[in-house]
Amino acid sequence: MPNSGEFAIIERYFSRRSARPDVLLGVGDDAAALRVPADQVLVAAIDTIVAGTHFPDGTPPADIGHRALAVNLSDLAAMGAQPAWALLSLSLPVASGEWLEQFAAGFYAIADRYQVSLVGGDTVHGPLVVTVQILGFADPAQLLTRSGARPGDYIYVTGVPGEAAGGLAVIQRNLQGSDGDYLRQRFLRPEPRVAAGIAARKLAHAAMDVSDGLLGDLTKLCSASGCRARVELESLPQSRSMHALFDDAECERLALAGGDDYELLFTVSPELAARFEADVGSTVRCTRIGTIVGAATRSDVGVDCYRHGVRVSVDALSSYDHFAPPS
Amino acid sequence: MPNSGEFAIIERYFSRRSARPDVLLGVGDDAAALRVPADQVLVAAIDTIVAGTHFPDGTPPADIGHRALAVNLSDLAAMGAQPAWALLSLSLPVASGEWLEQFAAGFYAIADRYQVSLVGGDTVHGPLVVTVQILGFADPAQLLTRSGARPGDYIYVTGVPGEAAGGLAVIQRNLQGSDGDYLRQRFLRPEPRVAAGIAARKLAHAAMDVSDGLLGDLTKLCSASGCRARVELESLPQSRSMHALFDDAECERLALAGGDDYELLFTVSPELAARFEADVGSTVRCTRIGTIVGAATRSDVGVDCYRHGVRVSVDALSSYDHFAPPS
Repeated sequence: MPNSGEFAIIERYFSRRSARPDVLLGVGDDAAALRVPADQVLVAAIDTIVAGTHFPDGTPPADIGHRALAVNLSDLAAMGAQPAWALLSLSLPVASGEWLEQFAAGFYAIADRYQVSLVGGDTVHGPLVVTVQILGFADPAQLLTRSGARPGDYIYVTGVPGEAAGGLAVIQRNLQGSDGDYLRQRFLRPEPRVAAGIAARKLAHAAMDVSDGLLGDLTKLCSASGCRARVELESLPQSRSMHALFDDAECERLALAGGDDYELLFTVSPELAARFEADVGSTVRCTRIGTIVGAATRSDVGVDCYRHGVRVSVDALSSYDHFAPPS
Repeated sequence: MPNSGEFAIIERYFSRRSARPDVLLGVGDDAAALRVPADQVLVAAIDTIVAGTHFPDGTPPADIGHRALAVNLSDLAAMGAQPAWALLSLSLPVASGEWLEQFAAGFYAIADRYQVSLVGGDTVHGPLVVTVQILGFADPAQLLTRSGARPGDYIYVTGVPGEAAGGLAVIQRNLQGSDGDYLRQRFLRPEPRVAAGIAARKLAHAAMDVSDGLLGDLTKLCSASGCRARVELESLPQSRSMHALFDDAECERLALAGGDDYELLFTVSPELAARFEADVGSTVRCTRIGTIVGAATRSDVGVDCYRHGVRVSVDALSSYDHFAPPS
């Protein structure tokens, strides 16, 4: 069990000075002091990842460091916010220098890419649990929320939902080859769609990140907006690597119900769709998958799936649940 | 193991709407949106508590909820900041409604007392680990830091350091009686010194919260300020309940090296000491325990203890270490 000396070593891995001029006080005092631009609102989210629940035991520490920050950046991306600062809480069973060095390398690599400064944290003895608090800012008039979808809006999704769940299956089934390698990376190294969120904030009515499965998260968006969604299954973005390893039914199931994608859902009025596709599509693949429709009553919210114009049942497609053991 | 339905139940315990007008978006979207006053800087801290490390297994859930927020409020108090918002990450082995209801009651009771709104969070399946991110604000010209102590400053501490460690000993040794009850509460229900921090911010040169032991934390303050501290052991605040249960040597050891007090250390110039004692002393017991002295060299920082003018060795007094098993 680590002693005070090892505790000091841990802190050394996370004491890099911030390069951001808006950090008045960073790591090393009781709290950080940060300057939010006067015309912006603070945007804040917290996300925790747990060994055995959110990533398999034995995941390389650099991937854990990447994921811990990436999943939080995805929350800010879904608001159209500009990320700025992060705080890190690390519960560790043992303080291994090698583990910490690799974790910190993964964490700082993505932090640097998004100009995010680590400004505080806490390291405690316990099971392997990593919590990141992300802070950023946004113009309050341009905040993207879950509740802004309107009947007639087109529904878009970034990237290729299902690839991350495919990657987890690759790891669990120990599949080899280049398609497996590609999907494994999609699971281990989710890329937050920060640029897409920022590009979309003047154009989209609503946004949300897809981390618990496309249908489940779209249902939550409909619930927040008081509407229904119609999804055209033949419009879902397809993945060559997914089809190389899984049959069509499994590909569709993972696309609709698999978790951990950290892609973004947007709803956009048809009038702005061309501009949206140009602006957001220049940052990342972005696919129109359906349409928002009005709800007959307040409780009549949800998602309907159609295949070539025929409604199909999706009862068998349960939402991804982090509380359930990985399948 | 909880399923999606139980997951939704968990969220219900933490979905209270915020009463603060500066919360644009609270619980329920991908992130919270918050308005920081234009002339203030954001102050942010994160602290994690782990079952078996920071509180004994079997601690009542309401006490865990209180502690999770209290230890974070203490970090803001040490900056002289005004707390405003919190985010909560809860890793739970099982989703028990009774447990969650009691935890939420403890959390919201202290949150309400300090006008703190819960604006976001994450609930995941895993071992019992609770992380809170606290956010507040302060006038940047009045931020209290660890690095502002100057030679000649008087050193003050709030409350009675050692009582929390005494309370932990009471729990571990299962001691009975009113003194034990009092000390047990001091451990289970630390009271953050928010009002003291705010009262001190125009007067103190430096501040820090005492959570890892008085001498260890004072050493960190000296290190950040580049100075030494002289502590007069006969000046330490005494606790009737501590002396009723422990001998003098044990009382002193717990006062100097016991953790979990969440009291504040301040350094104050002698010219402002009378005003400091009046203003800060009106919010909480506040005791002068020593003096800051100059360091001969940059590395000559640390704490010297004196008893009635005679220097005594404190080698035997190791700092409290959360990585060490509770003694």
